[in-house]
Amino acid sequence: MERVEQHASFGGRQEVWRHESRTLGCTMKVGIYLPPAALRGERCPVVYWLSGLTCTEQNFITKAGAQQHAAQHGLIVVVPDTSPRGDGVADDPSYDLGQGAGFYLNATQAPWAAHFRMEDYVVHELSAWVEQHFPTNARRSIFGHSMGGHGALTLALRHPGRYASVSAFSPIVAPSQVPWGRKAFAAYLGEDQGAWAAHDAVSLIATASERLPLLVDQGEADEFLATQLKPELLQAACDAVGHPLTLRMHPGHDHSYYFIASFIGEHLAFHADALKARA
Amino acid sequence: MERVEQHASFGGRQEVWRHESRTLGCTMKVGIYLPPAALRGERCPVVYWLSGLTCTEQNFITKAGAQQHAAQHGLIVVVPDTSPRGDGVADDPSYDLGQGAGFYLNATQAPWAAHFRMEDYVVHELSAWVEQHFPTNARRSIFGHSMGGHGALTLALRHPGRYASVSAFSPIVAPSQVPWGRKAFAAYLGEDQGAWAAHDAVSLIATASERLPLLVDQGEADEFLATQLKPELLQAACDAVGHPLTLRMHPGHDHSYYFIASFIGEHLAFHADALKARA
Repeated sequence: MERVEQHASFGGRQEVWRHESRTLGCTMKVGIYLPPAALRGERCPVVYWLSGLTCTEQNFITKAGAQQHAAQHGLIVVVPDTSPRGDGVADDPSYDLGQGAGFYLNATQAPWAAHFRMEDYVVHELSAWVEQHFPTNARRSIFGHSMGGHGALTLALRHPGRYASVSAFSPIVAPSQVPWGRKAFAAYLGEDQGAWAAHDAVSLIATASERLPLLVDQGEADEFLATQLKPELLQAACDAVGHPLTLRMHPGHDHSYYFIASFIGEHLAFHADALKARA
Repeated sequence: MERVEQHASFGGRQEVWRHESRTLGCTMKVGIYLPPAALRGERCPVVYWLSGLTCTEQNFITKAGAQQHAAQHGLIVVVPDTSPRGDGVADDPSYDLGQGAGFYLNATQAPWAAHFRMEDYVVHELSAWVEQHFPTNARRSIFGHSMGGHGALTLALRHPGRYASVSAFSPIVAPSQVPWGRKAFAAYLGEDQGAWAAHDAVSLIATASERLPLLVDQGEADEFLATQLKPELLQAACDAVGHPLTLRMHPGHDHSYYFIASFIGEHLAFHADALKARA
């Protein structure tokens, strides 16, 4: 492992690390924000951020404005890349499949199954690596945007007990029912839709064994709202089983990082509260 | 003129406009943040941000985290590009001359004199355009980073009465004495160094007719500190004539937008205070 960037930021430090992932079979970059408390040697909880299509670890750490709030709450923020990367890794010319579009699952189909194992990477290998090398207290929350909102919701629902809270901006809540998800699931999981429900938040909510604090923010001027995101499907699924959900619709807001930045402080406060309650 | 981007942001709106500049002889892009007060129709003061080498209008509006503070103080923030642009505009293969490196002056030498008139553009044409099309109260402040810190300091000092306050992150305070400035001044103003002092903040301070509030933040881990920035020269020039200066050195901070984001709130509060005092 090697630190490739470090920048003082709000009394803490924004770092970028490169490490070898055995799960993915490639080198991965990870953004790590260490708040002032961590630099003083205190053990801090970790919030994992999962980014959307086409992103690397850079988008969130440069544009979301999360560091000031992580500094205030004493949160380590870990930001992985969105897929395995490199010349030896399968890819597709379109932006919504292959590198930059890992969809936070373990692919079962060729040519993807060899490297595309983002679920195992994020849930197991990355958190073990983070907890070994940084001053954490082994409490975790998870959040993300768009494809990464899908990732946060499904990983939290598939791994009960692992995260104290989950939140999302503009998530793909029902990938089995929308073009981005159907294309990715067909490629990564195969045409048999029987395997898809296990990676679909709206399906998973129906049988969730845990009642996690769940916050979703969605812009009403989001260009993908009606075709790809459909938060009303998550609301209906939560209502059907009495799962808690705070779904907030925001007039005028679009799918960009300007939306994320406007509410990132509230998301980090939400996670800080849930992580404290776990203490 | 044409609006090419608009994003809801902290109750206000981050916009990007394209307009034809008669001064520069090309099309220019400008970032404009309108705070909630401006969207309600109130007339607001304007803070002009001048970016550093290689930047466009995008760097500051996506990375600095200024919008939340501009929203709170009711400030319009205007962010021009760093030079004229386009196929018909002279350029140089190096990053520190030509397009992306206008140095906020009017060039007198070929091939630059035809388009490189960033001083006239920022001070006159851009502010007239802003004050014609947006709800301003004609009060202005100015700030910037690195080459843009040089721009903010020199434009404020060369145009007394025009700005209520000036601040800078990591500015080039003495371009006549450092490699970035000497290269640019030789190209844009000619080898005769007699013309350089009029665009050098350290020289201009000596004869300043106005005592503007002046705030400078500088990172101690800035990779350009000793070779290009030399804030001690500005401190000495201010001390020599009794010009007010708040110069703050920040351990650990580098030349990046992580540094700017960490202190942007204090700069906007500083300008908001000075602009209120002008009311």
